[in-house]
Amino acid sequence: MDLAKKEALKAYKEDEVPIGSIIVKDGNIIAKAHNKKEKKQDATAHSEIECIKKANKKLKSWHLDDCELYVTLEPCMMCTGAIINSRIKKIYFAAKDPKGGSLDSNVKIKEIKGINHYPEFEFVEDKEYIDILKKYFKGKRIK
Amino acid sequence: MDLAKKEALKAYKEDEVPIGSIIVKDGNIIAKAHNKKEKKQDATAHSEIECIKKANKKLKSWHLDDCELYVTLEPCMMCTGAIINSRIKKIYFAAKDPKGGSLDSNVKIKEIKGINHYPEFEFVEDKEYIDILKKYFKGKRIK
Repeated sequence: MDLAKKEALKAYKEDEVPIGSIIVKDGNIIAKAHNKKEKKQDATAHSEIECIKKANKKLKSWHLDDCELYVTLEPCMMCTGAIINSRIKKIYFAAKDPKGGSLDSNVKIKEIKGINHYPEFEFVEDKEYIDILKKYFKGKRIK
Repeated sequence: MDLAKKEALKAYKEDEVPIGSIIVKDGNIIAKAHNKKEKKQDATAHSEIECIKKANKKLKSWHLDDCELYVTLEPCMMCTGAIINSRIKKIYFAAKDPKGGSLDSNVKIKEIKGINHYPEFEFVEDKEYIDILKKYFKGKRIK
């Protein structure tokens, strides 16, 4: 998660919502990415989507069955859908997102029937990251 | 929708699930795309994601507020999330997807509280397209 936080800090420096991701397979990092939505002006350029695309490219396969995703903020609906579509095994996230979080907050995927892949997930609270996120949004409100 | 169907047929010829999309703004087509998941080996390369990315690039903005998306099959969770994130105004779809459809089938977005943008949507059944889809999956089962 420390590496995902480093990615999030890259986004922070680029004036993006600070979110970072890492994908691990067999103990090796195969992809890392951070949010580039504003820089790219691309609504899909969340850190998780960027990271999944990189991992797909690295493995030359859309299947990420045995992979784990470390992401600083709980994924939104788009990113949760991408996690499901790529069959990622497990997600670790450092902060919950009560508004847009779609694993276990605003949407709880375990309560949706009929999904063709239910990833495991675990909330591993990281107060340092939560402070980074708060600082970012506080800065935004002042501007 | 005829143009979205043409895009879907391109996917069919490339041995992809035949799904095509068009994005329209002020009566003009600003993006068109088809499913390239297998060709690219990219779990995110659904027609809607490809189309949203193209529209973002065309408008040099992640906001697609005044845009309409014509897509042959009801979007999955990932694509519905991307529609929400990009603020697309309205979606027209030609076939329902009872398994993965996330506008009004397996997931009904109107029933999820707290989403920051609720796109309008309309099901405009297209039997010709539904036959194309059935033919594709029938071919897959025989192989």
